[in-house]
Amino acid sequence: MATVVQKYGGSSLADADKIKRVAERIAASRQTGCQVVAVCSAMGDTTDDLIKLAHQITPRPDPREMDLLLSTGEVVSSALVAMALNSMGHQAVSLTGVQAGIQTTTLFGKAQITGIEPKRIRKELAEGKTVIVAGFQGFTEENDVTTLGRGASDLTAVALAAALKADRCEIYTDVEGIYTADPRVVPEAVKIPDISYEEMLELAMLGAKMQPRSIELAAIYEVPVLVAHSFKDSPGTLIHREAPMETRNKVRGVACDLNVGKITVLGVPDRPGIAAAIFEPLAQAGVSVDVIVQNASVEKLTDVSFTISRTDLPRAVELVRSIAHAIGAKGTTSSSGLAKVSIVGAGIQNAPGYAARTFRALADAGVNIEMITTSEIRITCIVAEEKAKEAVRILHRAFGLESGS
Amino acid sequence: MATVVQKYGGSSLADADKIKRVAERIAASRQTGCQVVAVCSAMGDTTDDLIKLAHQITPRPDPREMDLLLSTGEVVSSALVAMALNSMGHQAVSLTGVQAGIQTTTLFGKAQITGIEPKRIRKELAEGKTVIVAGFQGFTEENDVTTLGRGASDLTAVALAAALKADRCEIYTDVEGIYTADPRVVPEAVKIPDISYEEMLELAMLGAKMQPRSIELAAIYEVPVLVAHSFKDSPGTLIHREAPMETRNKVRGVACDLNVGKITVLGVPDRPGIAAAIFEPLAQAGVSVDVIVQNASVEKLTDVSFTISRTDLPRAVELVRSIAHAIGAKGTTSSSGLAKVSIVGAGIQNAPGYAARTFRALADAGVNIEMITTSEIRITCIVAEEKAKEAVRILHRAFGLESGS
Repeated sequence: MATVVQKYGGSSLADADKIKRVAERIAASRQTGCQVVAVCSAMGDTTDDLIKLAHQITPRPDPREMDLLLSTGEVVSSALVAMALNSMGHQAVSLTGVQAGIQTTTLFGKAQITGIEPKRIRKELAEGKTVIVAGFQGFTEENDVTTLGRGASDLTAVALAAALKADRCEIYTDVEGIYTADPRVVPEAVKIPDISYEEMLELAMLGAKMQPRSIELAAIYEVPVLVAHSFKDSPGTLIHREAPMETRNKVRGVACDLNVGKITVLGVPDRPGIAAAIFEPLAQAGVSVDVIVQNASVEKLTDVSFTISRTDLPRAVELVRSIAHAIGAKGTTSSSGLAKVSIVGAGIQNAPGYAARTFRALADAGVNIEMITTSEIRITCIVAEEKAKEAVRILHRAFGLESGS
Repeated sequence: MATVVQKYGGSSLADADKIKRVAERIAASRQTGCQVVAVCSAMGDTTDDLIKLAHQITPRPDPREMDLLLSTGEVVSSALVAMALNSMGHQAVSLTGVQAGIQTTTLFGKAQITGIEPKRIRKELAEGKTVIVAGFQGFTEENDVTTLGRGASDLTAVALAAALKADRCEIYTDVEGIYTADPRVVPEAVKIPDISYEEMLELAMLGAKMQPRSIELAAIYEVPVLVAHSFKDSPGTLIHREAPMETRNKVRGVACDLNVGKITVLGVPDRPGIAAAIFEPLAQAGVSVDVIVQNASVEKLTDVSFTISRTDLPRAVELVRSIAHAIGAKGTTSSSGLAKVSIVGAGIQNAPGYAARTFRALADAGVNIEMITTSEIRITCIVAEEKAKEAVRILHRAFGLESGS
């Protein structure tokens, strides 16, 4: 019998009515003859409400207690979904992260899954039951409850699919799949029927609605992942291992990320070890640096610019000022009015012309490119925030994505 | 070092501000040099809200799922109390029923504690931490979460006190202790400084604010229980094993219970086995019968009257009608406009005059007694509901309880 792991997001479980509709969807899958394990996020804004409550107690809640607190949100929604299924005559049982055997590290708030012991899940499936699992949570060797980070119910689902050797992982959410661009920005954007793990990973890192860690895990275990709408019967987007094809060189989507801040260290003495001196303290402070550009050296002095999450900007600026002083740089500047616009597609870096077409299209439209970074399957331009949406539309058109082919 | 188990009720934990005040109280106890284990109920109306949510899903929620759902309420309040303590610089850790080692039967919704394995609690206490335990819950051999019934956080606290051989169990609530009568009914009622388990059990069964099962357990393990106000520094009422004293024959309190329904089976053929024929089916249907009165037989026919919880009345009446038909009785009548008024005190049944004084005082005030029942330490009269409060005041005065001696 085929086994399917499904995941339902919080907006699909926001009230009793939606929970009943999710239960109907699960029941319908069960009736096609496969075993179903369904992972649930917390209802609607539950997690945010619990965080608010904790912050009414103290501005810095103890991480262990915070995780135990937050884990209750997914337990509530899972129990309710199981109740709904049972009331419809479908045997179901809900399991906490502990009961589902999801073992993690002790890094409260962003624990990593170290292994899954799905004994209880297998037992319940063998008894013909549908299993509902509280997402986003696991437990340590000491039997303490952990959470896996925001959006990590996706991760729970993919990890369970891998552990159970499930045939497919289905991520149900409030969008119909992955689009060539954000339909709110580009009205002619079209749904992508299927996409590779690598391409999806780039899009996810750039703001598409899936957690990057989940896609990495799916890629490692080659779990096919379907992203589809919770309540619509449209086919969704399948993320899977694609056969490598020379002819596949093409742009799959255009992504945009507004959460970009930029810092420039001016007049840095150009000597060995200077990059380490700047970036090591940032890494130690947990600030992830994205794009780094170092200008050619003029009279042994250079400017180093880099981008980070805009949310990290205030503390990073503070840190970089003291670093600049320590290394004898002339000063620092920072800017938050930036955005990252990217085209993604397997092989585009190796195929001639994609970068050139990108830069030409933006130049023709008068969009200035501040920084450029590329990967195997991505070309990213940093542009002014107010030009970002226009840039997305320009690139979507320039690469003919509206044709959906 | 002395060990104290404290329990805080839901009204004392209703919001962030109250949670902080509870944490301060726990910290103050800790600073007197004793080890503290604090059991928390769910915040305010949380449990009722979760029940409402479940009933929006289905009128008859699966009991296993219901227990998992409801157990989250106490986990939330416990984590918040632990956060508050940690933020005040007092090391604290909150434990779920599973983590606290509270083993139970599998009777979801009203599971019974079969044992406590307090290994984790002892470890945390040994490390100098205050331990917060989610009340009202435990787990089965299969690792499923159970709940112990409404008001059972008291039971969690007493059971933990017994398992840890704690020096005392302190029940903190929104009243200052146990009174000689409900102060809303009898303004001159006074707080009882100390009372025996048996007397408290009778008062609890009659509506005083403590769960009868908890008092039974405290009596078995001889756990001294203090009932006091969460936020006031008044001494409260100590429930403990009192030295038997002949002179102790006196009334300790007057209780009143409005949740009384009465059924009479008329013209019952007076032959052996007739009581069993009536009460066995009621017991099987889970209806607890309280007072039973059988009139003297007239021409081999008798009337049998009994009281039950008013909430059980509709289904009991239905059941008794068919029984009456089966045994050839003439008919049934029922009434819900009744109340139970009781005086409680060790030895009053064996001491002369208490019953007579009770009946005389009520008769002088024109209160008609419909039924009478007594125990070793209690005399109960069933009276019309509209006379109940007056009867309480009369008896409170008749036995001189306002003097507080």
